Amino acid sequence: MYISDKFDSGNIRVVELNDPQNIQLEIKHDHQSEFFQWFHFRFEGPLEQQYRFSLINAGQSAYAKGWQGYQVVASYDREEWFRIDTEYDGEQLHFSLLLEQPSVYFAYFAPYSYERHQDLLHTMQQDYRVNLNTLGQTLDGRDMSLLTIGDAEKAKHKVWVIARQHPGETMAEWFVEGLLGNLLDQDNPLAMKLLEDTVFYVVPNMNPDGSVRGHLRTNAVGANLNREWQSPSMERSPEVFLVREKMLELGGDLFLDIHGDEDLPYNFVAGCEGIPSYDERHKLLEDTFKQAYMAISPDFQDTHGYAKDEAGQANLTIAAAWLGEQFKTLSYTIEMPFKDNADMPDEAFGWSPERAMQLGCDVLFPIKQTLAKL
Amino acid sequence: MYISDKFDSGNIRVVELNDPQNIQLEIKHDHQSEFFQWFHFRFEGPLEQQYRFSLINAGQSAYAKGWQGYQVVASYDREEWFRIDTEYDGEQLHFSLLLEQPSVYFAYFAPYSYERHQDLLHTMQQDYRVNLNTLGQTLDGRDMSLLTIGDAEKAKHKVWVIARQHPGETMAEWFVEGLLGNLLDQDNPLAMKLLEDTVFYVVPNMNPDGSVRGHLRTNAVGANLNREWQSPSMERSPEVFLVREKMLELGGDLFLDIHGDEDLPYNFVAGCEGIPSYDERHKLLEDTFKQAYMAISPDFQDTHGYAKDEAGQANLTIAAAWLGEQFKTLSYTIEMPFKDNADMPDEAFGWSPERAMQLGCDVLFPIKQTLAKL
Amino acid sequence: MYISDKFDSGNIRVVELNDPQNIQLEIKHDHQSEFFQWFHFRFEGPLEQQYRFSLINAGQSAYAKGWQGYQVVASYDREEWFRIDTEYDGEQLHFSLLLEQPSVYFAYFAPYSYERHQDLLHTMQQDYRVNLNTLGQTLDGRDMSLLTIGDAEKAKHKVWVIARQHPGETMAEWFVEGLLGNLLDQDNPLAMKLLEDTVFYVVPNMNPDGSVRGHLRTNAVGANLNREWQSPSMERSPEVFLVREKMLELGGDLFLDIHGDEDLPYNFVAGCEGIPSYDERHKLLEDTFKQAYMAISPDFQDTHGYAKDEAGQANLTIAAAWLGEQFKTLSYTIEMPFKDNADMPDEAFGWSPERAMQLGCDVLFPIKQTLAKL
Amino acid sequence: MYISDKFDSGNIRVVELNDPQNIQLEIKHDHQSEFFQWFHFRFEGPLEQQYRFSLINAGQSAYAKGWQGYQVVASYDREEWFRIDTEYDGEQLHFSLLLEQPSVYFAYFAPYSYERHQDLLHTMQQDYRVNLNTLGQTLDGRDMSLLTIGDAEKAKHKVWVIARQHPGETMAEWFVEGLLGNLLDQDNPLAMKLLEDTVFYVVPNMNPDGSVRGHLRTNAVGANLNREWQSPSMERSPEVFLVREKMLELGGDLFLDIHGDEDLPYNFVAGCEGIPSYDERHKLLEDTFKQAYMAISPDFQDTHGYAKDEAGQANLTIAAAWLGEQFKTLSYTIEMPFKDNADMPDEAFGWSPERAMQLGCDVLFPIKQTLAKL
Ligand SMILES: [Ca+2]
Ligand SMILES: [Ca+2]
Ligand SMILES: [Ca+2]
Ligand SMILES: [Ca+2]
Repeated sequence: MYISDKFDSGNIRVVELNDPQNIQLEIKHDHQSEFFQWFHFRFEGPLEQQYRFSLINAGQSAYAKGWQGYQVVASYDREEWFRIDTEYDGEQLHFSLLLEQPSVYFAYFAPYSYERHQDLLHTMQQDYRVNLNTLGQTLDGRDMSLLTIGDAEKAKHKVWVIARQHPGETMAEWFVEGLLGNLLDQDNPLAMKLLEDTVFYVVPNMNPDGSVRGHLRTNAVGANLNREWQSPSMERSPEVFLVREKMLELGGDLFLDIHGDEDLPYNFVAGCEGIPSYDERHKLLEDTFKQAYMAISPDFQDTHGYAKDEAGQANLTIAAAWLGEQFKTLSYTIEMPFKDNADMPDEAFGWSPERAMQLGCDVLFPIKQTLAKL
Repeated sequence: MYISDKFDSGNIRVVELNDPQNIQLEIKHDHQSEFFQWFHFRFEGPLEQQYRFSLINAGQSAYAKGWQGYQVVASYDREEWFRIDTEYDGEQLHFSLLLEQPSVYFAYFAPYSYERHQDLLHTMQQDYRVNLNTLGQTLDGRDMSLLTIGDAEKAKHKVWVIARQHPGETMAEWFVEGLLGNLLDQDNPLAMKLLEDTVFYVVPNMNPDGSVRGHLRTNAVGANLNREWQSPSMERSPEVFLVREKMLELGGDLFLDIHGDEDLPYNFVAGCEGIPSYDERHKLLEDTFKQAYMAISPDFQDTHGYAKDEAGQANLTIAAAWLGEQFKTLSYTIEMPFKDNADMPDEAFGWSPERAMQLGCDVLFPIKQTLAKL
Repeated sequence: MYISDKFDSGNIRVVELNDPQNIQLEIKHDHQSEFFQWFHFRFEGPLEQQYRFSLINAGQSAYAKGWQGYQVVASYDREEWFRIDTEYDGEQLHFSLLLEQPSVYFAYFAPYSYERHQDLLHTMQQDYRVNLNTLGQTLDGRDMSLLTIGDAEKAKHKVWVIARQHPGETMAEWFVEGLLGNLLDQDNPLAMKLLEDTVFYVVPNMNPDGSVRGHLRTNAVGANLNREWQSPSMERSPEVFLVREKMLELGGDLFLDIHGDEDLPYNFVAGCEGIPSYDERHKLLEDTFKQAYMAISPDFQDTHGYAKDEAGQANLTIAAAWLGEQFKTLSYTIEMPFKDNADMPDEAFGWSPERAMQLGCDVLFPIKQTLAKL
Repeated sequence: MYISDKFDSGNIRVVELNDPQNIQLEIKHDHQSEFFQWFHFRFEGPLEQQYRFSLINAGQSAYAKGWQGYQVVASYDREEWFRIDTEYDGEQLHFSLLLEQPSVYFAYFAPYSYERHQDLLHTMQQDYRVNLNTLGQTLDGRDMSLLTIGDAEKAKHKVWVIARQHPGETMAEWFVEGLLGNLLDQDNPLAMKLLEDTVFYVVPNMNPDGSVRGHLRTNAVGANLNREWQSPSMERSPEVFLVREKMLELGGDLFLDIHGDEDLPYNFVAGCEGIPSYDERHKLLEDTFKQAYMAISPDFQDTHGYAKDEAGQANLTIAAAWLGEQFKTLSYTIEMPFKDNADMPDEAFGWSPERAMQLGCDVLFPIKQTLAKL
């Protein structure tokens, strides 16, 4: 038996690897942070045997409730990621697999590698309507990359989409890949029409350092980027600093920040009802967006979600709130499940890259409906 | 120089083929019919020369107005069909091409062959949710094929989609191919949700004989199928007879009949305002459908279209009218252009298979919205 | 239950279709000919039942020995053609299938349609090294198409490849598709080197009328084209007449005529040992070709094959013999099995399009080795 | 303007980045080693401008002669890697580009990432004839992965293929990808026949640490693995130690070690003429291999290559020599060019991944011919 995590976004520590029935593992903390929950490792062993794995520190992870009803993601070919049932006893997470190929990858969710991230950026830039810019560098020296889609000069509307502030929420970048593919589809009249008067600014990965390092929630120095929007700095949170400066420079009419939620088995949005400037107009935009999203995608809903903020009680260190207040416009956090959409469950694959991509495709419709109200 | 039409849906007669600058051609009539306008032929000649083609009987064709602003469809590889500008002088249609490869196909619209039709049926039947049935035979002995998608036993709603009563309107079968692909996409929640309570009955090609023969509008004995719905017969219009009997047996809640229009450069619907039973409820369904279709697809519009029927003046020999009256429910003819969508023109490709497929994908949304009103 | 053959290369006559356990069918004769053995039909019936089919005139077919050890070819999706075991009682051929999808195609070998033929020609012509010419018309009015690959002006060697004189031998056109794909592969140095000094003249389908009509062996008027090479005529065998004239005009250094054999479960060649001019040089070329082909492809062998002609006893009405004598050079009939290669049997698929294509890829090697001896 | 190398196999140091006409860069040394020549970086700048890059320490690199006639490899989409001409003045290497997209990658040769390496291993393991084993860990903690193809129990012959001891020689892993794809192609009779009696042991990447680190020639601690075969250690060269142990355990009949050469614009082999046990039998195997390789692939030749070793003067620290002596059998280093094959030059792409893959496909033929002599 053999376990490794020495690869892009790998994260595991082996505690015991002697008994196939009792493989004990720990998830490593994010660097300089208490957060942990993302795991990603490769296991190799004799074929056609049953193996039982335990994440022994699961109960201490960032969102321990997330393990209830959770299914591990696994792949033999690194392309199809299937689900495996788990048991969570309040302390440890256990799961078993009858090994069908010599080597298998396990992860918290289907990984989205930095190689694929670079492929995405450079496939996109081939389109004549796309520009690619590096805003600056992360603390590990990686690129903060911005895609601009459409004609910024002529555009009436500006839409910002950022993803993966929390690097372990890989569904967020799958979502963006789906969105971009649809937006650039020249046979899709909705996308073509949108780009006639709208420019999209898209940051597919807000946290490349955390992504490569195998973090759940923070950057290279333990900063939770989604608590840095009021006073980011080049020392602690250059990722936010650089993107926020660009937003202030260019302005924006609609903001989406794409995330994953460890606990709730639904797709939903978290909005700006708690920001100081929230008003009827803002509410109308929110309602328009949600109604349109529900109409086009039964994977989206508005029944289950986070508790609403009291008026004026929003945490303005969070991107969506800070942006909503700053630009006085629609600013949503979109949350997808690590688990599944309980309204339309898929036993075999749960919430998957394919469905996240489809939800990203479908978001063009509520965007278009909402822009029409501006 | 060499011209041939001896292949699936081929249609041309050579009048003069001596002078590259004056190639004179005639479109053949549909068998036992006065209708003609569909053409499809292969031309071969020395490379890098300019050739000028004239369809000398264009002015006598079924919809001579259709030649105004029309661009010929052409392909070197039988996959990409590009457009060529034409001149129409009221009698003849002229167009020129600088030949880039030895052989080129010209057609009225991108062909959809009987081989592809069979491929479509048999690719679809692989899905466990699809059934394939032959309702009977055409006069030439071809299959009248019905695809049933979804669980007919459990379904609350029944949707019928038929296409290509007029065989030269090939965009209708491209539309159906798009619709079916989207409907069976298991990562598309809208489709998955639709199939939870709806069964689709789809006839991708109502007129295979006319299709293979290279007809514009009629079947093997010159019958215009879309004037046969009141009293079809196995002798003259078995295509309609067989499908209509099945509809009467199974019932239906929403009917779409997919067509192409020679003249108008728009996508639109023709409805049932002229049928005897038309009422507020019917109007609500029509409005719901149109609003939803316009919302999801800027390629669809409701400004340009056919003149509305006077109340009670509908021609009940037409499928949409007869079905609307018979089943007292939404029954639309969907029309796509042979030319282009003038609202979103594409110089290089005009209205194309890809866009017809996309319009077929998008029709699931208005269907779903409309069914919600039943 | 439902059976049809009204499509490209369809061939069956229903005798009895009442009892699923006793479906009686006849193969139709080639038009104006006694030959028959090719069949191709579609069957539709209730799912998950067992059906038993009998070709009741199998014993009178052209090569009745061919039914021994033969497996029927079948497909649910028209792309993957699997094999079904048969029983041959000396008069009838019986086979059974548990139906897994509503509709299934059966054929003597995986079909190669006229649509695919046109696709092949027009995909190929896109390559700047390829020319496409129509030599004239068949009796049904189809194109006799010649592909010229390479630079005829500069070429030191001229290689002719013709296929499917016998239209039911569809493996011959699959072979050509493989050959052409490999020959035009710009990353394959063997092909690139070959085309530096060699021009290929390829007729992918010598008998399009017979192909579309569902014939085994003859053209539209019952002519066995491979017995027409001494005195072809535009009235009876324009296919041979046109190609032969072109060969006489352009010359050739190596000739391959691609066929299938109903009986022998092997790939082999039939050569020119019986032609008047056969000599040591000719034998050297033959030996070179065979040795090289065996070296590169274990699917090719020289143990099993036709009885050798006595010296001077060759039938010069046959293409390979006539060409060998006329051009005093290597001229081979290549035979592939309808059944399987018994040296490397594949239970599931038998001899298949994929393997015929591979054998076509591999033929470039013996061609190159042989040309080096000229 | 912006330059980065913070990604898989990135290697550059920016010296001056102010003047687009004078961008000065240095290649970094391999860690704990004097070797350097591999470079790989991303450049971003305003579109449609001309940029001039200088590698100012080129003249001090490991194989300075390699810069003569060298063309840089570049890509806008990370898939197609085109060539750019250079000037080498004996000290610096200069090249210019008119930027067509915002961002471009430059490299010494088309990169082969660790992500792709993992994809390769796991795609391969899906085949029932393939086993994947981890032999142990590198000094950075990466996997030393061995693929076993075929049935080791029944095999008469054992073939070893190792690649990329020198990590910057990425063409070696492209070669292996081509070889493996062909070997597992079930429609290729040569491969199927080979696997009837032969087992392949393949190490696609002997030096994953050097690969990820962007090294030319050494591992994580500066060891040139191809000088470690006499006395490797887990401390300094675990990569060689682990593979060599496995070879000693399993034995082998034919060894290939895949490399790239900085200087010579040819594909060639370096053999064992200088090892103590070299004899007529060994020479026969070598000649058989070379003759067969030349026959099948015009990209392979035996005119240009390294100077032959004097008898008995082989350097037995080199893999090919040590293995040839140890196992008394054919053991070749296969060298491909960084530049191009001067016998069949390709202006646009030079020696490319596609051609390296093809050479890997084609190597099955000389392997088979050589094994037949054992
Ligand atoms: Ca989050
Ligand atoms: Ca119509
Ligand atoms: Ca034959
Ligand atoms: Ca080397």
